[in-house]
Amino acid sequence: MSKEKRVAIIGAGPSGLAQLRAFQAAKQKGADIPEIVCFEKQKDWGGMWNYSWRTGVDENGEPVHGSMYRYLWSNGPKECLEFADYSFDEHFGEPISSYPPREVLWDYIQGRVQKAGVRPYIRFNTAVKSVTFDEHSKKFTVTSMDYTEDRLISGEFDHVIVATGHFSTPHMPEFSGFDHFPGRILHAHDFRDATEFQDKHVLLIGSSYSAEDIGSQCYKYGAKSVTTSYRSKPMGYDWPDNWTEKPLLAHVDGNVAHFKDGSTQHVDAIILCTGYRHDFPFLPDALRLKTSNRLWPLDLYEGVTFTPNPQLFYLGMQDLWYSFNMFDAQAWLTRDIIMGRIALPSAQKMEQANQHWRELEDEIETDANAFEFQGAYIDRLIRQTDYPAIDIKAVNQIFLQWKKDKKADIMGYRNRCYTSVMTGTDAVPHHTRWLDAMDDSLEAYLQRTARPSNMSVFRPAKAKATTKVPSKPQHQMASHLRDNRHSITARPKSQHLGASHSARSAD
Amino acid sequence: MSKEKRVAIIGAGPSGLAQLRAFQAAKQKGADIPEIVCFEKQKDWGGMWNYSWRTGVDENGEPVHGSMYRYLWSNGPKECLEFADYSFDEHFGEPISSYPPREVLWDYIQGRVQKAGVRPYIRFNTAVKSVTFDEHSKKFTVTSMDYTEDRLISGEFDHVIVATGHFSTPHMPEFSGFDHFPGRILHAHDFRDATEFQDKHVLLIGSSYSAEDIGSQCYKYGAKSVTTSYRSKPMGYDWPDNWTEKPLLAHVDGNVAHFKDGSTQHVDAIILCTGYRHDFPFLPDALRLKTSNRLWPLDLYEGVTFTPNPQLFYLGMQDLWYSFNMFDAQAWLTRDIIMGRIALPSAQKMEQANQHWRELEDEIETDANAFEFQGAYIDRLIRQTDYPAIDIKAVNQIFLQWKKDKKADIMGYRNRCYTSVMTGTDAVPHHTRWLDAMDDSLEAYLQRTARPSNMSVFRPAKAKATTKVPSKPQHQMASHLRDNRHSITARPKSQHLGASHSARSAD
Repeated sequence: MSKEKRVAIIGAGPSGLAQLRAFQAAKQKGADIPEIVCFEKQKDWGGMWNYSWRTGVDENGEPVHGSMYRYLWSNGPKECLEFADYSFDEHFGEPISSYPPREVLWDYIQGRVQKAGVRPYIRFNTAVKSVTFDEHSKKFTVTSMDYTEDRLISGEFDHVIVATGHFSTPHMPEFSGFDHFPGRILHAHDFRDATEFQDKHVLLIGSSYSAEDIGSQCYKYGAKSVTTSYRSKPMGYDWPDNWTEKPLLAHVDGNVAHFKDGSTQHVDAIILCTGYRHDFPFLPDALRLKTSNRLWPLDLYEGVTFTPNPQLFYLGMQDLWYSFNMFDAQAWLTRDIIMGRIALPSAQKMEQANQHWRELEDEIETDANAFEFQGAYIDRLIRQTDYPAIDIKAVNQIFLQWKKDKKADIMGYRNRCYTSVMTGTDAVPHHTRWLDAMDDSLEAYLQRTARPSNMSVFRPAKAKATTKVPSKPQHQMASHLRDNRHSITARPKSQHLGASHSARSAD
Repeated sequence: MSKEKRVAIIGAGPSGLAQLRAFQAAKQKGADIPEIVCFEKQKDWGGMWNYSWRTGVDENGEPVHGSMYRYLWSNGPKECLEFADYSFDEHFGEPISSYPPREVLWDYIQGRVQKAGVRPYIRFNTAVKSVTFDEHSKKFTVTSMDYTEDRLISGEFDHVIVATGHFSTPHMPEFSGFDHFPGRILHAHDFRDATEFQDKHVLLIGSSYSAEDIGSQCYKYGAKSVTTSYRSKPMGYDWPDNWTEKPLLAHVDGNVAHFKDGSTQHVDAIILCTGYRHDFPFLPDALRLKTSNRLWPLDLYEGVTFTPNPQLFYLGMQDLWYSFNMFDAQAWLTRDIIMGRIALPSAQKMEQANQHWRELEDEIETDANAFEFQGAYIDRLIRQTDYPAIDIKAVNQIFLQWKKDKKADIMGYRNRCYTSVMTGTDAVPHHTRWLDAMDDSLEAYLQRTARPSNMSVFRPAKAKATTKVPSKPQHQMASHLRDNRHSITARPKSQHLGASHSARSAD
């Protein structure tokens, strides 16, 4: 591994940070790592998790990256996304609930990379404007706009790793009548604050996670009614009384929405929960991944190496069941390919492997098949590197339980608790039920107040402790807040107490 | 003039269309014109005047260009922006009011370029991504993304004309508390429909045209209150009772806005009317105009030729009093420089000229000084080309009267009428007073119903007819709608009847 190699990472969100951590982990073990430059359009790291009130374009005229909204709480158990090399226990020093709000997860993501000290690799406030590849020199030229210095800078790189995510560029269909709809029409990407829709009749077009969660937000914060409109089939949850599922919107006439079944509904605002497009405006045709949101995009060997030009990598471009820890698995593998620890097979073999995975993907019938497919993929990657092992089967069990919990109580599933497959720690219920928890700040979250006591914890079979909880939590802010907290006035009674006790005794 | 020259025009809004018309006008007179390619990001022409309900990014992931909103009516007399080579009379075939709504002006803009047949020059749905200049070949390479074909295309050009406007990239300051404001925060750029703010307390930051007009829209469409917040001084109009002018916002605390004078106001939504930035993300540093919004940006000889690289031109980059007809004057001049009809002086002389204009600009004290300055500039350009003469002194008189009319009645000035300096035609009052005219469509506008009869017309001294009204109006849609209109039931009584009669008799 030669120091002369230069690697560009585009984006410092969860994927880009995973890549930085992967290289730093190798360096920590004594390896000679390439020269790394990470380009980040925003002024801080965390990508989507770095909330901004801004919509449209940012202060530099760049399209706002984030689709994050206020009051977002994780819609899947944190036990399914936990880093294998940096547990929630290590970060918070004690058990927390399974569905933390945005700021808590952002804090967790930051804890690892602060510990790793990778911030100096990142050029903030710098947007990549173009990437080209020279066939003779076999080098990429990355041209970026440094908004702090107000100038374009070009540099040569041997590898480019695209870590810009795929939930930033909205897919925005138009429906007849939008031009004359008297109210706000927005995409989920521009949704920021549910209180704007208080006392309003809100229509959401779509039936996937955005519609489900933004609709729930609107319900929670006082919308008069929520109508969701599906293309193929309703979500089918046991919705509150003022929530209706309708077939696809046909057109709007003034304030009246007309649906395919002929029914109508008065609506005050329309939110397009119509998904996102894989969009890489800085890449020329030959380097651009072209895919819909699916489990196995083609042209990516092992899900990361861009086969038409294997010096180029993409992270996290799959439809996401797994997320943070999948990015890790991909980042560690990408690192090892770049550092020559793992050799790429012939173009033909890479293509065959892609086709094989695509065939397996095509056989998927159920949601369980889908996360098992993705789990198997992650497991395969991890086995090739020194990333710590993950008990994928146990995580899959948690995914399955999560689906059941949602089905049983769509407005209450976030009150459920699961056991970490990394540490064996049982989550503890949050002090306030999700539907009543209006303040989603880190400070409010970490307050020690009475916790509900009637919650059981889902513990997957064979969940095993793989990480020791350290005697001191890693993160400054968490520890600062902890010092100011009230003493515990009540503890959950019915939780299964296991390895989590080591965390408590450390506090 | 050789056919081999290639000219790229970036943008098909009022400026870009003026440039196409300028070249076509020369061709019509028998000249040999360069090869022209006009790149337009949107799917149709008209730039800002091509209204879209979209905000943020468009269907291609490109930042939405338009800042246009529903129910916008011209906020200056149409007599100040009339084309000298294509009058309102020629387009509509009869007199119309002085402050038409957006769709009526869009129709007018389109009428001229449809007549000229310049549409084939335009590549729609194609965004320019980068422009570079090669010092050896003295050619520009323009790289554009054709979203219809989904591919990047590069081409060489001898000249580039930037006609992308400067009201698209918002200047978006942040105020303390925005991250936790429970309601919508948007820039004027993303404002689309005032009915969204019905029954709301709306805060507008700013005291220029956007704040004035968007506040007026909100008032007209039922906002509970309008608060505008100024940095230097209040606008000082005789506002309605529920409109308050406050000093600059200091911070927001929940729903409460705190101003610099210590006063507070409950607000439900915040609209940043904080202006726009000259933004050319497709241009490298060396080709990029850097200026604030002012009457004489430096580095532009005659206001158009980019002196650091005189093969590059910018149209319409000035602070705008004059608009459409100024773009024309600039486009005709740019055409003649490119076609070698007008020679550029030495770099030193261009710089001296720029400094001279800048000194004159620095002496401006009043609004009248400002539009007189810009009028003198336009007059200078027109005298160098074959663009039809404009009686600039008469237009300046109309500007002055417009200022008086606004001061006298900020919610009623759009009911006033002025006389065209091009045709001598008196405007006629719209059938409905602006404050009561909720339907702003072209169809509603052209309906022949009773018109208010108590309006006098402002006729500038020495206004002269320079264009004959043709026997048939040029524009299809207008003529189609005209066929379906009701017969006239009343006519304005007090208007001055002049050359406008020839238009009526043609109907």
